[in-house]
Amino acid sequence: MYELSRPDECSVGRAMDILGERWTLLILRECFYGVRRFSVMQRNLGIARNILSARLQLLVRTGILEKRRYQEEPERFEYKLTEKGLALYPAVVAIMRWGDEHLCQGDRPVVLRHTCGGAGDPVMVCWSCREELDPHDVTPEPADAPPLALAPIPA
Amino acid sequence: MYELSRPDECSVGRAMDILGERWTLLILRECFYGVRRFSVMQRNLGIARNILSARLQLLVRTGILEKRRYQEEPERFEYKLTEKGLALYPAVVAIMRWGDEHLCQGDRPVVLRHTCGGAGDPVMVCWSCREELDPHDVTPEPADAPPLALAPIPA
Repeated sequence: MYELSRPDECSVGRAMDILGERWTLLILRECFYGVRRFSVMQRNLGIARNILSARLQLLVRTGILEKRRYQEEPERFEYKLTEKGLALYPAVVAIMRWGDEHLCQGDRPVVLRHTCGGAGDPVMVCWSCREELDPHDVTPEPADAPPLALAPIPA
Repeated sequence: MYELSRPDECSVGRAMDILGERWTLLILRECFYGVRRFSVMQRNLGIARNILSARLQLLVRTGILEKRRYQEEPERFEYKLTEKGLALYPAVVAIMRWGDEHLCQGDRPVVLRHTCGGAGDPVMVCWSCREELDPHDVTPEPADAPPLALAPIPA
Protein backbone atom coordinates (compact mmCIF):
# COMPACT_ATOMS: atom_id res chain seq x y z
CA MET A 1 0.00 0.00 0.00
CA TYR A 2 1.28 3.48 -0.76
CA GLU A 3 1.60 6.39 1.62
CA LEU A 4 -1.16 8.97 1.75
CA SER A 5 0.09 12.48 2.13
CA ARG A 6 -1.11 14.47 5.15
CA PRO A 7 -0.55 18.05 4.11
CA ASP A 8 0.02 20.44 7.03
CA GLU A 9 -3.06 22.33 6.07
CA CYS A 10 -5.48 19.52 5.33
CA SER A 11 -9.18 19.98 4.82
CA VAL A 12 -10.29 18.42 8.12
CA GLY A 13 -7.87 20.53 10.13
CA ARG A 14 -8.85 23.73 8.36
CA ALA A 15 -12.54 22.93 8.69
CA MET A 16 -12.19 22.32 12.42
CA ASP A 17 -10.39 25.65 12.85
CA ILE A 18 -13.75 27.17 11.91
CA LEU A 19 -16.28 24.57 13.06
CA GLY A 20 -14.54 22.93 15.99
CA GLU A 21 -16.58 24.56 18.64
CA ARG A 22 -19.87 23.65 20.27
CA TRP A 23 -21.60 27.01 19.77
CA THR A 24 -20.54 27.40 16.16
CA LEU A 25 -22.27 24.18 15.19
CA LEU A 26 -25.34 25.05 17.27
CA ILE A 27 -25.57 28.44 15.51
CA LEU A 28 -25.34 26.70 12.14
CA ARG A 29 -28.11 24.34 13.19
CA GLU A 30 -30.29 27.39 13.94
CA CYS A 31 -29.47 28.77 10.48
CA PHE A 32 -30.52 25.49 8.87
CA TYR A 33 -33.74 25.67 10.90
CA GLY A 34 -34.42 28.97 9.13
CA VAL A 35 -33.44 31.34 11.96
CA ARG A 36 -31.69 34.52 10.80
CA ARG A 37 -31.96 37.03 13.63
CA PHE A 38 -29.59 37.62 16.50
CA SER A 39 -32.33 37.90 19.12
CA VAL A 40 -34.01 34.66 18.04
CA MET A 41 -30.72 32.76 18.00
CA GLN A 42 -29.91 34.11 21.43
CA ARG A 43 -33.27 33.04 22.83
CA ASN A 44 -33.23 29.59 21.22
CA LEU A 45 -29.69 28.80 22.30
CA GLY A 46 -29.51 30.56 25.66
CA ILE A 47 -26.08 31.83 24.62
CA ALA A 48 -24.34 34.95 25.96
CA ARG A 49 -24.56 37.96 23.63
CA ASN A 50 -20.81 38.43 23.40
CA ILE A 51 -20.20 34.79 22.51
CA LEU A 52 -22.96 34.76 19.89
CA SER A 53 -21.62 38.00 18.45
CA ALA A 54 -18.06 36.66 18.22
CA ARG A 55 -19.16 33.39 16.61
CA LEU A 56 -21.36 35.18 14.06
CA GLN A 57 -18.44 37.44 13.18
CA LEU A 58 -16.23 34.40 12.58
CA LEU A 59 -18.89 32.81 10.37
CA VAL A 60 -19.26 36.04 8.36
CA ARG A 61 -15.50 36.53 8.08
CA THR A 62 -15.04 32.98 6.78
CA GLY A 63 -17.82 33.40 4.21
CA ILE A 64 -20.25 30.92 5.76
CA LEU A 65 -22.87 33.52 6.69
CA GLU A 66 -23.76 36.79 5.02
CA LYS A 67 -24.80 39.74 7.18
CA ARG A 68 -27.64 41.80 5.70
CA ARG A 69 -29.49 44.87 6.93
CA TYR A 70 -33.24 44.25 7.01
CA GLN A 71 -34.31 47.43 8.85
CA GLU A 72 -32.97 50.99 8.76
CA GLU A 73 -34.17 52.73 11.93
CA PRO A 74 -33.16 51.30 14.22
CA GLU A 75 -30.59 49.48 12.11
CA ARG A 76 -31.07 45.72 12.29
CA PHE A 77 -29.24 42.87 10.62
CA GLU A 78 -29.91 39.27 9.77
CA TYR A 79 -27.56 36.40 9.00
CA LYS A 80 -28.10 34.21 5.97
CA LEU A 81 -26.24 31.09 4.86
CA THR A 82 -24.09 31.61 1.77
CA GLU A 83 -23.48 28.87 -0.81
CA LYS A 84 -20.40 27.90 1.18
CA GLY A 85 -22.53 27.75 4.32
CA LEU A 86 -25.33 25.75 2.69
CA ALA A 87 -22.70 23.22 1.62
CA LEU A 88 -22.20 22.41 5.31
CA TYR A 89 -25.62 20.79 5.49
CA PRO A 90 -24.42 17.17 5.17
CA ALA A 91 -21.85 17.74 7.93
CA VAL A 92 -24.35 19.33 10.34
CA VAL A 93 -26.97 16.65 9.64
CA ALA A 94 -24.45 13.84 10.04
CA ILE A 95 -23.27 15.19 13.41
CA MET A 96 -26.87 15.67 14.58
CA ARG A 97 -27.90 12.15 13.62
CA TRP A 98 -24.87 10.60 15.23
CA GLY A 99 -25.57 12.55 18.41
CA ASP A 100 -29.23 11.48 18.45
CA GLU A 101 -28.33 7.85 17.94
CA HIS A 102 -25.21 7.44 20.04
CA LEU A 103 -25.27 10.16 22.70
CA CYS A 104 -29.00 10.53 23.36
CA GLN A 105 -30.13 6.87 23.31
CA GLY A 106 -31.82 7.24 19.93
CA ASP A 107 -34.05 10.02 21.23
CA ARG A 108 -34.91 12.40 18.37
CA PRO A 109 -36.42 15.72 19.37
CA VAL A 110 -36.43 16.85 15.72
CA VAL A 111 -37.36 14.95 12.58
CA LEU A 112 -36.23 16.09 9.14
CA ARG A 113 -39.11 16.05 6.65
CA HIS A 114 -38.15 16.06 2.96
CA THR A 115 -40.37 17.60 0.26
CA CYS A 116 -41.02 14.07 -1.02
CA GLY A 117 -43.01 13.54 2.21
CA GLY A 118 -40.52 11.14 3.71
CA ALA A 119 -39.08 11.68 7.17
CA GLY A 120 -36.16 9.58 8.17
CA ASP A 121 -32.43 9.48 8.50
CA PRO A 122 -30.44 11.12 5.76
CA VAL A 123 -28.08 8.56 4.25
CA MET A 124 -24.55 9.01 2.90
CA VAL A 125 -24.20 7.10 -0.38
CA CYS A 126 -21.54 6.45 -3.01
CA TRP A 127 -21.60 9.03 -5.75
CA SER A 128 -21.38 6.30 -8.37
CA CYS A 129 -23.48 3.26 -7.34
CA ARG A 130 -25.73 5.09 -4.79
CA GLU A 131 -25.20 2.36 -2.21
CA GLU A 132 -24.98 3.41 1.44
CA LEU A 133 -21.34 4.00 2.38
CA ASP A 134 -19.81 1.51 4.76
CA PRO A 135 -16.32 2.64 5.78
CA HIS A 136 -15.09 -0.93 5.24
CA ASP A 137 -16.00 -0.62 1.56
CA VAL A 138 -14.08 2.60 1.02
CA THR A 139 -10.36 2.95 0.36
CA PRO A 140 -8.60 6.30 0.50
CA GLU A 141 -6.04 6.78 -2.24
CA PRO A 142 -3.87 9.69 -3.31
CA ALA A 143 -5.70 11.78 -5.88
CA ASP A 144 -2.75 11.54 -8.27
CA ALA A 145 -2.09 7.81 -7.82
CA PRO A 146 -2.31 5.28 -10.64
CA PRO A 147 -5.08 2.71 -10.10
CA LEU A 148 -3.70 0.00 -7.81
CA ALA A 149 -4.98 -3.12 -6.15
CA LEU A 150 -5.97 -1.66 -2.80
CA ALA A 151 -7.47 -3.00 0.37
CA PRO A 152 -10.19 -1.19 2.28
CA ILE A 153 -9.65 -0.68 6.01
CA PRO A 154 -9.56 -4.00 7.86
CA ALA A 155 -12.79 -5.15 9.55
CA MET B 1 -45.19 27.29 12.32
CA TYR B 2 -44.67 25.61 15.67
CA GLU B 3 -41.72 25.96 17.99
CA LEU B 4 -38.98 23.40 17.86
CA SER B 5 -37.63 22.46 21.24
CA ARG B 6 -33.92 23.01 21.86
CA PRO B 7 -33.18 20.73 24.77
CA ASP B 8 -30.25 21.82 26.93
CA GLU B 9 -28.45 18.65 26.05
CA CYS B 10 -29.08 18.42 22.36
CA SER B 11 -27.32 16.03 20.04
CA VAL B 12 -25.18 18.63 18.24
CA GLY B 13 -23.97 20.14 21.50
CA ARG B 14 -23.15 16.76 23.03
CA ALA B 15 -21.43 15.62 19.85
CA MET B 16 -19.26 18.73 19.78
CA ASP B 17 -18.25 18.22 23.40
CA ILE B 18 -16.46 15.13 22.10
CA LEU B 19 -15.61 16.03 18.49
CA GLY B 20 -15.24 19.80 18.64
CA GLU B 21 -11.53 19.86 18.39
CA ARG B 22 -9.14 19.86 15.47
CA TRP B 23 -6.96 16.95 16.63
CA THR B 24 -9.87 14.70 17.56
CA LEU B 25 -11.23 14.82 14.02
CA LEU B 26 -7.76 14.36 12.53
CA ILE B 27 -7.22 11.27 14.71
CA LEU B 28 -10.58 9.90 13.56
CA ARG B 29 -9.57 10.50 9.95
CA GLU B 30 -6.43 8.41 10.61
CA CYS B 31 -8.62 5.64 12.07
CA PHE B 32 -10.82 5.67 8.97
CA TYR B 33 -7.64 5.45 6.87
CA GLY B 34 -6.94 2.19 8.69
CA VAL B 35 -4.29 3.46 11.13
CA ARG B 36 -4.45 1.87 14.59
CA ARG B 37 -1.08 2.42 16.23
CA PHE B 38 0.00 5.32 18.40
CA SER B 39 3.41 5.68 16.72
CA VAL B 40 1.92 5.77 13.21
CA MET B 41 -0.72 8.32 14.19
CA GLN B 42 1.95 10.45 15.82
CA ARG B 43 4.14 10.35 12.71
CA ASN B 44 1.30 11.00 10.27
CA LEU B 45 -0.14 13.89 12.25
CA GLY B 46 2.99 15.44 13.71
CA ILE B 47 1.11 15.72 17.00
CA ALA B 48 2.70 15.94 20.46
CA ARG B 49 2.64 12.62 22.38
CA ASN B 50 0.77 14.05 25.36
CA ILE B 51 -1.95 15.59 23.19
CA LEU B 52 -2.38 12.41 21.14
CA SER B 53 -2.52 10.38 24.35
CA ALA B 54 -5.16 12.64 25.91
CA ARG B 55 -7.33 12.64 22.78
CA LEU B 56 -7.14 8.85 22.43
CA GLN B 57 -8.14 8.48 26.08
CA LEU B 58 -11.19 10.70 25.48
CA LEU B 59 -12.15 8.65 22.41
CA VAL B 60 -11.79 5.40 24.37
CA ARG B 61 -13.70 6.77 27.37
CA THR B 62 -16.58 7.89 25.16
CA GLY B 63 -16.77 4.52 23.42
CA ILE B 64 -15.63 5.70 19.98
CA LEU B 65 -12.36 3.75 20.00
CA GLU B 66 -11.49 0.46 21.65
CA LYS B 67 -7.98 -0.04 23.06
CA ARG B 68 -6.58 -3.52 22.47
CA ARG B 69 -3.26 -5.11 23.36
CA TYR B 70 -1.57 -6.56 20.28
CA GLN B 71 1.81 -7.42 21.83
CA GLU B 72 2.80 -8.64 25.29
CA GLU B 73 6.52 -7.86 25.76
CA PRO B 74 6.92 -5.03 25.50
CA GLU B 75 3.23 -4.34 25.99
CA ARG B 76 1.75 -2.53 22.98
CA PHE B 77 -1.76 -1.35 22.23
CA GLU B 78 -3.76 -0.42 19.19
CA TYR B 79 -6.92 1.63 18.80
CA LYS B 80 -9.86 0.33 16.78
CA LEU B 81 -13.11 2.05 15.87
CA THR B 82 -16.15 0.64 17.66
CA GLU B 83 -19.63 0.53 16.10
CA LYS B 84 -20.27 3.95 17.64
CA GLY B 85 -17.03 5.19 16.09
CA LEU B 86 -17.71 3.68 12.66
CA ALA B 87 -21.05 5.51 12.70
CA LEU B 88 -19.10 8.79 12.58
CA TYR B 89 -18.01 8.07 9.03
CA PRO B 90 -20.61 10.29 7.31
CA ALA B 91 -19.71 13.21 9.59
CA VAL B 92 -15.95 12.88 9.00
CA VAL B 93 -16.41 12.47 5.24
CA ALA B 94 -18.78 15.43 5.05
CA ILE B 95 -16.35 17.70 6.92
CA MET B 96 -13.45 16.53 4.75
CA ARG B 97 -15.32 17.14 1.51
CA TRP B 98 -16.50 20.56 2.60
CA GLY B 99 -12.94 21.46 3.55
CA ASP B 100 -11.55 20.26 0.21
CA GLU B 101 -14.14 22.18 -1.74
CA HIS B 102 -14.46 25.39 0.23
CA LEU B 103 -11.23 25.86 2.17
CA CYS B 104 -8.67 24.31 -0.18
CA GLN B 105 -9.88 25.59 -3.56
CA GLY B 106 -11.25 22.22 -4.57
CA ASP B 107 -7.84 20.61 -4.15
CA ARG B 108 -8.26 16.96 -3.15
CA PRO B 109 -5.17 15.23 -1.83
CA VAL B 110 -7.17 12.06 -1.15
CA VAL B 111 -9.84 10.36 -3.22
CA LEU B 112 -12.29 7.88 -1.70
CA ARG B 113 -12.59 4.73 -3.81
CA HIS B 114 -15.69 2.60 -3.23
CA THR B 115 -15.70 -1.18 -3.77
CA CYS B 116 -18.00 -0.59 -6.76
CA GLY B 117 -14.96 0.98 -8.46
CA GLY B 118 -16.35 4.49 -8.34
CA ALA B 119 -14.37 7.35 -6.87
CA GLY B 120 -16.17 10.59 -6.27
CA ASP B 121 -17.92 12.68 -3.69
CA PRO B 122 -20.08 10.86 -1.20
CA VAL B 123 -23.60 12.25 -1.38
CA MET B 124 -26.15 12.77 1.39
CA VAL B 125 -29.58 11.61 0.22
CA CYS B 126 -33.11 11.38 1.55
CA TRP B 127 -33.77 8.09 3.27
CA SER B 128 -37.06 7.76 1.42
CA CYS B 129 -36.72 9.01 -2.18
CA ARG B 130 -32.87 8.78 -2.39
CA GLU B 131 -32.66 12.25 -3.90
CA GLU B 132 -29.68 14.41 -2.92
CA LEU B 133 -30.60 16.55 0.11
CA ASP B 134 -30.92 20.27 -0.54
CA PRO B 135 -31.45 22.12 2.75
CA HIS B 136 -34.20 24.15 1.10
CA ASP B 137 -36.17 20.94 0.59
CA VAL B 138 -35.99 19.85 4.20
CA THR B 139 -38.19 21.02 7.06
CA PRO B 140 -37.35 20.26 10.67
CA GLU B 141 -40.36 19.32 12.76
CA PRO B 142 -40.82 18.13 16.33
CA ALA B 143 -40.68 14.35 16.45
CA ASP B 144 -43.99 14.22 18.32
CA ALA B 145 -45.84 16.77 16.16
CA PRO B 146 -48.98 15.94 14.18
CA PRO B 147 -48.46 16.28 10.40
CA LEU B 148 -48.86 19.98 9.50
CA ALA B 149 -48.54 22.12 6.43
CA LEU B 150 -44.95 23.22 6.84
CA ALA B 151 -42.60 25.42 4.90
CA PRO B 152 -38.97 24.54 4.30
CA ILE B 153 -36.35 27.17 5.15
CA PRO B 154 -36.68 30.26 2.91
CA ALA B 155 -34.42 30.45 -0.16
